Amino acid sequence: MARVARTRATLRDVAERAGVHSSTVSRVLNPKTRPMVSETVAARVLEIANDMGYRANPFALSLKTNRSFTVGVLIPDITNPVFPPIIRGIEKVLGPAGYTTILADSDEDPDIEQGILDRMRARQVDGLILATAHRADQVVEECEADGIPFVLINRTMAGEGIYSVTNDDFGGIAMAVDHLADLGHRRIAHLAGPQDLSTGFERHRGYLEAIKARGLEIDPELIFVCRAFTEEQGKTGLEALLDSAKPFTAVIAGNDMLALGCYDALEDRGLRCPEDMSVTGFNDMPFVDKFRPPMTTVRIPHYEMGNAAANILLSLLEGEDEEPPKSVCQTLELIVRGSTAKARD
Amino acid sequence: MARVARTRATLRDVAERAGVHSSTVSRVLNPKTRPMVSETVAARVLEIANDMGYRANPFALSLKTNRSFTVGVLIPDITNPVFPPIIRGIEKVLGPAGYTTILADSDEDPDIEQGILDRMRARQVDGLILATAHRADQVVEECEADGIPFVLINRTMAGEGIYSVTNDDFGGIAMAVDHLADLGHRRIAHLAGPQDLSTGFERHRGYLEAIKARGLEIDPELIFVCRAFTEEQGKTGLEALLDSAKPFTAVIAGNDMLALGCYDALEDRGLRCPEDMSVTGFNDMPFVDKFRPPMTTVRIPHYEMGNAAANILLSLLEGEDEEPPKSVCQTLELIVRGSTAKARD
Repeated sequence: MARVARTRATLRDVAERAGVHSSTVSRVLNPKTRPMVSETVAARVLEIANDMGYRANPFALSLKTNRSFTVGVLIPDITNPVFPPIIRGIEKVLGPAGYTTILADSDEDPDIEQGILDRMRARQVDGLILATAHRADQVVEECEADGIPFVLINRTMAGEGIYSVTNDDFGGIAMAVDHLADLGHRRIAHLAGPQDLSTGFERHRGYLEAIKARGLEIDPELIFVCRAFTEEQGKTGLEALLDSAKPFTAVIAGNDMLALGCYDALEDRGLRCPEDMSVTGFNDMPFVDKFRPPMTTVRIPHYEMGNAAANILLSLLEGEDEEPPKSVCQTLELIVRGSTAKARD
Repeated sequence: MARVARTRATLRDVAERAGVHSSTVSRVLNPKTRPMVSETVAARVLEIANDMGYRANPFALSLKTNRSFTVGVLIPDITNPVFPPIIRGIEKVLGPAGYTTILADSDEDPDIEQGILDRMRARQVDGLILATAHRADQVVEECEADGIPFVLINRTMAGEGIYSVTNDDFGGIAMAVDHLADLGHRRIAHLAGPQDLSTGFERHRGYLEAIKARGLEIDPELIFVCRAFTEEQGKTGLEALLDSAKPFTAVIAGNDMLALGCYDALEDRGLRCPEDMSVTGFNDMPFVDKFRPPMTTVRIPHYEMGNAAANILLSLLEGEDEEPPKSVCQTLELIVRGSTAKARD
């Protein structure tokens, strides 16, 4: 262990070297109390402290101020490119306000999520932004019980008094259904996301309602519920539908990663997108405009979501007079690109 | 501030409710000392502690053990998809070893990086993995002076005794040059990354050497040094070369983000890739195989890099007998896809 031992100069070490009492060192190191000490002494103490590489004991400091100026952000899947612009939106609000954003990736594993939360709270982050919420979520309940300020982002759960920034998932899917119906598609499949997530659940509900509203037939055989929002699950899901369902000409994927999996399945089967099958995604994550074909998708305002969640958290942390909005639900936009086309006769 | 106040049950609260001394509570809560207390008392204390939602004061605990079982990872640009698989590689080693990985994104800003480092050290992460290193790096020097165990990943800097996991950037570029020369390209441009980063520097050096080794002419007009590894800089760089240099038929980009910017510039100018211009990237980051055209690139073993860096850090943290390797340099592989083709006559 010798090579990792950390020896830090203590307040006492600095005081001894400077020949002053440690309370004097303490006063000098705090800009607010520095004027209480003579300029000559202050200059000597600062030089010695700097020279010895002294740093205030952060734990002692935290015990005193009870603030870390650190905010934790829990991400369910760091490999999903939808999150970085959300994170940037958070950082660009919290940074200038003096807070450092730290992130952790749960990889959709509840045990890892619990571990992260315990460690983050143990290091006393001042607040949390959770992109990991399930519709029923023990971790969120713990945060509530604990009284730590937190905001849910992207995914939400039922409950009074929970701050959240989400999207109109229900209405977003309706735009995709209308777009495909306008292109003449009659049999439109749905690759739904996990139903224990508000996103997967609301988009599925939106699909059913929009199909009905357009006077199309709801065929349960055209719906596949994926176990995760991953490319691999999207491929598996579309393959299952292609194998079992009666012919269909379009598929609405629960998000862009699932839609990307649809591209894979179509390529494997020698089917062309959009000529043989129209595909829509959800999120407009970075890079989908670069894909073959560029993806038609429902755009969520990533960066703005991050901004909004961070602003709510800030007003909770700073205890501003005005109560922040409980839940922000953003309106969405359909981005039509090359993965959708007129239905073949 | 009332609505964010956090009231936690203290050890004393639990002791009072249980009618025992707080040292008894302390003994019960530590599985190692629990046998010192009668089973009946232990059971009562545990029930009450649980009931009151008592958590050991994490700062007090840290002061005692001086271990947080948290490792900090500094990422220079969270929007670059090359990092998530590296992060996963880190997490999959550290997680099972009992460490939580927390991440922070410096957005290539030295001030933000310094702030993150200060906060992370203040919360006493046990160690650091830095993907942010510059060839001369004050933050790395501070970590050295501080004695905190750390490992550099992807980028490195000169210096004795610094642990690092990097790639054969020099040799990787040579593979790209050879590939293009074999396809008959004679005038091959280079969009170099920032020269204060080892990656940008070594790849530039590798380009010069490989061009010479193939008996091709080095034309300084064919080289553009980008200010950052971003899509926007790649677009700017290729546009500048197209505007100023004598005709060329291929461009070697310093990484995939720069190559993606080349796609943008070519599309804007009505030029086709690979028919009019071959493009190579570096990293084989996720999604480049999905692009139009799928990108020819030099593959770095992302996940394995993460594993290797985490394993080195672990042996530093756990103080194993065997000294870990000082620097690991991984060999690379050229992945030929659709963005390169025979040079036009």
